[in-house]
Amino acid sequence: MIGVMAPEPSTAPSAADLSVSYRAYLACLNARAWANLDGFVADDVIYNGQVVGLAGYRRMLERDTTEIPDLRFDLDLLVVDPPQVAARLVFDCTPRGRFLDLDVNGRRVSFSENAFYRIVGGKIAEVWSVIDKAAIERQL
Amino acid sequence: MIGVMAPEPSTAPSAADLSVSYRAYLACLNARAWANLDGFVADDVIYNGQVVGLAGYRRMLERDTTEIPDLRFDLDLLVVDPPQVAARLVFDCTPRGRFLDLDVNGRRVSFSENAFYRIVGGKIAEVWSVIDKAAIERQL
Repeated sequence: MIGVMAPEPSTAPSAADLSVSYRAYLACLNARAWANLDGFVADDVIYNGQVVGLAGYRRMLERDTTEIPDLRFDLDLLVVDPPQVAARLVFDCTPRGRFLDLDVNGRRVSFSENAFYRIVGGKIAEVWSVIDKAAIERQL
Repeated sequence: MIGVMAPEPSTAPSAADLSVSYRAYLACLNARAWANLDGFVADDVIYNGQVVGLAGYRRMLERDTTEIPDLRFDLDLLVVDPPQVAARLVFDCTPRGRFLDLDVNGRRVSFSENAFYRIVGGKIAEVWSVIDKAAIERQL
């Protein structure tokens, strides 16, 4: 049919795809299923401007969950506009010692993290994250 | 035509609309055009869980721009999924005295703010914002 073009075949994930896979990523973190992290995070992932790579990203998460055994990633807000995802995460937990250079020492604190992600090939390729340190200071 | 329904007339802003109006909101802040703020911010706006209202929101901005005369709101990332908007703003400025309980005292600092917005009737009805205080501390 002249003038009618078939849509380009697209393999880019939809907003619904990214929403599902982001929630699965959080479930992976909450299960401490580090062996599955490579299904969600790119090999050469960049975190706050630094190429940390998958191994560095995993070490960061392992350190956080060792220092905060009851750390649970709860999704408060999710904004998806492929290839970008923005998530507000909320935490209610008891860091054992120092956290973000603050002497939390087992006190219970609530705070949020506002994070942006760039998704490439279905995986997190870059993260820009800010944790609400001032909120923690107000609780100490 | 049986089986074919006209689309519901919709007055909800599109992602493109929200993107344009968010950029216009930042231009308003950068122009210190406080008298126009009511075109972008709802009367009963909530900021980080507190009903500050349009007047309180304006006072907060006036205070920030008095304490930081060279404050400029630069958009780094924008994720739009109506009715939600998420924006990463970057700042490079010289707060005159204390800022976020830190003695900045005229030093130049760079930091980001990751913010989420809920848009109602074309205006900002709620804001969840986190400023990267730790980044400023590292520069002092």
